[in-house]
Amino acid sequence: MLPATFQLLVSTTRNAGYQSARRFSNVGFVGLGNMGGFMSRNLLKKGYKLRVYDVDKAAVARVTAAGAQPAANLAEVARDSDIVFTMLPMNEHVLECYTAEDGLIKRVVLLSAKKGTYLVDSSTIDPAVAQRVAEEARKHQLNFVDGPVSGGVVGAENASLTFMIGGAKADYERTKPVVECMGSRAVHCGDIGMGQVAKICNNMLLAISMIGVSEALNLGQRLGLDPKILTDIVNTSTGRCWSSEIYNPVPGVVDGVPSSKNYEGGFGVGLVAKDLGLAQASATRVGAPIALGSLSHQIYRTMMQQGLAGKDFSVVYPFIRGENNK
Amino acid sequence: MLPATFQLLVSTTRNAGYQSARRFSNVGFVGLGNMGGFMSRNLLKKGYKLRVYDVDKAAVARVTAAGAQPAANLAEVARDSDIVFTMLPMNEHVLECYTAEDGLIKRVVLLSAKKGTYLVDSSTIDPAVAQRVAEEARKHQLNFVDGPVSGGVVGAENASLTFMIGGAKADYERTKPVVECMGSRAVHCGDIGMGQVAKICNNMLLAISMIGVSEALNLGQRLGLDPKILTDIVNTSTGRCWSSEIYNPVPGVVDGVPSSKNYEGGFGVGLVAKDLGLAQASATRVGAPIALGSLSHQIYRTMMQQGLAGKDFSVVYPFIRGENNK
Amino acid sequence: MLPATFQLLVSTTRNAGYQSARRFSNVGFVGLGNMGGFMSRNLLKKGYKLRVYDVDKAAVARVTAAGAQPAANLAEVARDSDIVFTMLPMNEHVLECYTAEDGLIKRVVLLSAKKGTYLVDSSTIDPAVAQRVAEEARKHQLNFVDGPVSGGVVGAENASLTFMIGGAKADYERTKPVVECMGSRAVHCGDIGMGQVAKICNNMLLAISMIGVSEALNLGQRLGLDPKILTDIVNTSTGRCWSSEIYNPVPGVVDGVPSSKNYEGGFGVGLVAKDLGLAQASATRVGAPIALGSLSHQIYRTMMQQGLAGKDFSVVYPFIRGENNK
Amino acid sequence: MLPATFQLLVSTTRNAGYQSARRFSNVGFVGLGNMGGFMSRNLLKKGYKLRVYDVDKAAVARVTAAGAQPAANLAEVARDSDIVFTMLPMNEHVLECYTAEDGLIKRVVLLSAKKGTYLVDSSTIDPAVAQRVAEEARKHQLNFVDGPVSGGVVGAENASLTFMIGGAKADYERTKPVVECMGSRAVHCGDIGMGQVAKICNNMLLAISMIGVSEALNLGQRLGLDPKILTDIVNTSTGRCWSSEIYNPVPGVVDGVPSSKNYEGGFGVGLVAKDLGLAQASATRVGAPIALGSLSHQIYRTMMQQGLAGKDFSVVYPFIRGENNK
Repeated sequence: MLPATFQLLVSTTRNAGYQSARRFSNVGFVGLGNMGGFMSRNLLKKGYKLRVYDVDKAAVARVTAAGAQPAANLAEVARDSDIVFTMLPMNEHVLECYTAEDGLIKRVVLLSAKKGTYLVDSSTIDPAVAQRVAEEARKHQLNFVDGPVSGGVVGAENASLTFMIGGAKADYERTKPVVECMGSRAVHCGDIGMGQVAKICNNMLLAISMIGVSEALNLGQRLGLDPKILTDIVNTSTGRCWSSEIYNPVPGVVDGVPSSKNYEGGFGVGLVAKDLGLAQASATRVGAPIALGSLSHQIYRTMMQQGLAGKDFSVVYPFIRGENNK
Repeated sequence: MLPATFQLLVSTTRNAGYQSARRFSNVGFVGLGNMGGFMSRNLLKKGYKLRVYDVDKAAVARVTAAGAQPAANLAEVARDSDIVFTMLPMNEHVLECYTAEDGLIKRVVLLSAKKGTYLVDSSTIDPAVAQRVAEEARKHQLNFVDGPVSGGVVGAENASLTFMIGGAKADYERTKPVVECMGSRAVHCGDIGMGQVAKICNNMLLAISMIGVSEALNLGQRLGLDPKILTDIVNTSTGRCWSSEIYNPVPGVVDGVPSSKNYEGGFGVGLVAKDLGLAQASATRVGAPIALGSLSHQIYRTMMQQGLAGKDFSVVYPFIRGENNK
Repeated sequence: MLPATFQLLVSTTRNAGYQSARRFSNVGFVGLGNMGGFMSRNLLKKGYKLRVYDVDKAAVARVTAAGAQPAANLAEVARDSDIVFTMLPMNEHVLECYTAEDGLIKRVVLLSAKKGTYLVDSSTIDPAVAQRVAEEARKHQLNFVDGPVSGGVVGAENASLTFMIGGAKADYERTKPVVECMGSRAVHCGDIGMGQVAKICNNMLLAISMIGVSEALNLGQRLGLDPKILTDIVNTSTGRCWSSEIYNPVPGVVDGVPSSKNYEGGFGVGLVAKDLGLAQASATRVGAPIALGSLSHQIYRTMMQQGLAGKDFSVVYPFIRGENNK
Repeated sequence: MLPATFQLLVSTTRNAGYQSARRFSNVGFVGLGNMGGFMSRNLLKKGYKLRVYDVDKAAVARVTAAGAQPAANLAEVARDSDIVFTMLPMNEHVLECYTAEDGLIKRVVLLSAKKGTYLVDSSTIDPAVAQRVAEEARKHQLNFVDGPVSGGVVGAENASLTFMIGGAKADYERTKPVVECMGSRAVHCGDIGMGQVAKICNNMLLAISMIGVSEALNLGQRLGLDPKILTDIVNTSTGRCWSSEIYNPVPGVVDGVPSSKNYEGGFGVGLVAKDLGLAQASATRVGAPIALGSLSHQIYRTMMQQGLAGKDFSVVYPFIRGENNK
């Protein structure tokens, strides 16, 4: 499912800067859910010594079984890690995890014997929250970068994620080798928060394109045009996009994608709506008009109300055909 | 500006079916405006004998100067052509031109010494109008195909248009050689009207994508992310599309496109709005929801009210930045 | 359910111009469906001699049973009526009925012994179609007005419809007495087509308001605010509108409206979508932006795809709550 | 400009509960901008002893000149007030003002000789922020209600504001007499935050209606229908709403409203966009679809980009006509 362009890029970026990196010896990992569970195990596979924490004890046990050391709280993660990754659901969890009285930043400052611990947040959150956490870290001489990922659970499992890194260039270079144990690519997007900005802007465009493709293919079909033929025309013409070429929402047009598997797996409607909510909040803050982004957000929200939160977002195609309720 | 994929496709389709084609000896051409003027001259260059007509005498004179025979009315076109092309602005012109009492169909039936004259309409119109004209033609044993084009005035001039043909496969094969004198590619989309359907569906998707790209790049920029960097990320990620890769709306990101030339030339806002109007009318007729298509239509209409009808449609980027009124 | 303002207006407009009206002696009625069936019977009740026609013989039989004379075709309607009403589903039916070779206009001209027959079309259609029919009528010295109605099937049954009349002031005055046998109010909107314009603009605004009210009341409810309390606040504040006051979409807030009867009866989603389609087509023709009208159109179309075409349009409230599929 | 229904309601609610109220003796007021300046002076006029604070010293000086005591900081407000009003621009100001280390809540607890001080926030903010502040107040045995207002600067000046109060019924009753010195009406909306919810839901509906009315009247006009006639029809029909009746956006249809004064004064586009941003954020949080609310938000944001932030929101009418840039 990974487009060829990704593979291409990987081979070129993989080698850059690898040699110069001093290896981290102790890695902390907080947040061992669908994504973090796989990501942390990929670090173990590469030989990293890992200390892991999650509020869910069962999640901790699963990664411990694979060779990690369990931590009873954030303090235990903070104590001996020279780099800590976090992979958490939402803004508030990230804020709490980093900036609470007993949060990562204060625990590291208080307990860690090491200097200049690195903190990498791979959650998808509001860029402003990333910036606030970074400021807090900077006050205490800690190094923070934001590094949200694309590639989904499959990418987390296969270590083929793309990391979008925001932070100082040196911090990007420094964290890249360990980051790349969990993914196939790490892009430096700019200063703190810009990883998040890149992710939500790309995903907003993706969310729009998928609805656009679905509307166009359905309209064509209703007017008598075979969606395979229309897809061929679009894909060699000005309408082509990732959603028409790689991830076509019409069952049977592209093999192996969610539309050909009853819209199971893939990128859930609920997660797309979450990312669009972040785009919306950011856009409101800076006053940037996003008419289509905003409407797309509402369409996915409407689909959630219709019970489609857990389906792949390409389910918008059967939704606009009225086939979801059959 | 033509993407590589086009070129690729051209070379493979070019040779198919060429051999079987009996050459038409007399070609008629009605509608010699921005597009038709260049298209008809390309037929002359390929050695076709051409009889041309337009309500605008100056337009006729220009093509006559290049070697065509002028016609004083549709009857004179009908009399000796074995194939007639039409390139007209809107539904009503096409209907009138073909089905009026003194229109092409009745004139051909009455006056032409030949059997089975071919009629090819390259106007962009409602598929239902194409189907109605085709039915009228069929009643009188004439052969009609719809063949709208993409590629714009530049494509018309350079004979690099793509023709989307709707009609019987045999008629497609028969007309392809002469069609290809005006373009680099002719795609058979299906039965009558399907050329129009392909065009309006593709263009609806294009119109949506361009706004989506503009919203995403502007949002990123407002949040601090360089549009060049964001474009690079999007183009190797799931948000990529023709509008981000080939025709980027931000000045300076891609060379040679309208955004880098003050949004001059290219695909005018007014024309995009026209195509979206056709999509809208078709969608309403069959009851297909096109929420983003419909909103995009309204956005381009709003831009027209702001005096942007003649600018390239990528001008939506400065429009949402509020830069159009400076 | 009829707001007080209606009643008020009725009593004032009722008396204007009544005295001057010469009574029509023979009335024709074409189109005896849900609306036309009741409307024609109301004319019979007022003592008019009626000749009726419909393609559906059963519909003709029902009105004949109430005292009307059946007509076998339009010619029989045309022969002895001095005024003919039409109540037909869509543009094409109206065009065909009036302007076909064997349509009303040519039949009246050929067969009627009377001069200056009046033609009143109460269908809801594109204003441009009304104008085209009127032009055809004028050529043959017939008097045409457009007179679409609001009030729905209940209004048709109770003779409480509002007629929106487009045409010459004198024609409005002349037809008003007979029109008012079927309704409680006849408003002169302006020249030919303006009745249709008034209806589709009002209904577009209504369609928007109903979604707006539903979004606001649902949002309030989701945030913890009782919809009855919010309705009270809105109704004495700047958000108030007919859809919040008279026709509230939340079950139990206003008695006797469709939302309190499982969204049965009332103004069907399919009919709202039809009117929005007319608004959309007109707006496209004149290039008027209708962003919210257009999106509302698409929302009702999406609801139709979800099987809600026959429900009252206030069903948008449970639709956005995801309650329609339970 | 105030609709009759308001006046009606006022007289009935005015007298309820008045008698039981023990008069507050010392009132604090924080935030003396466009709204707070007038509101605080209305309290002075009613004879209240007032201590006022604002970061803008000039604003303090203006209210001091009218008889108030100036406070150098929040501590001075906290010390002797038994009720404090706040009228601040945004979420962050309210949070800071109440919950900072040197904020109102901690200062009152530390410095005030009185028990059970009342805190009334009349800012328009996110209901979740109001709830958070209330929780903080409750922890310290202080009484907090949220009481955003409608009526604008004119209502603030004339003491004709409507207060939408969220909080315990007893707190509503207790604060009502002093609240009513600044307005003509105080509505109890429910528990903490429900005042904010009522306000943003009503304003979202208002924002939608105004665009809807503008689209409908412009469409009618473009199709040939006089906006005055269409307004009359709409206002006695199902499309009627406050924006069509009281605050019509077409110049000359209703006297004395901003549309008849070059769209000066009234309810600024920037403020409408702010309220829609709050609606959007709340809707995202609870997952309530607001397709029209969201699109309206984007339309006002687009207008802000076109330089219309300071104009009355009915300027959407000339905006969609393309008249704003002339």
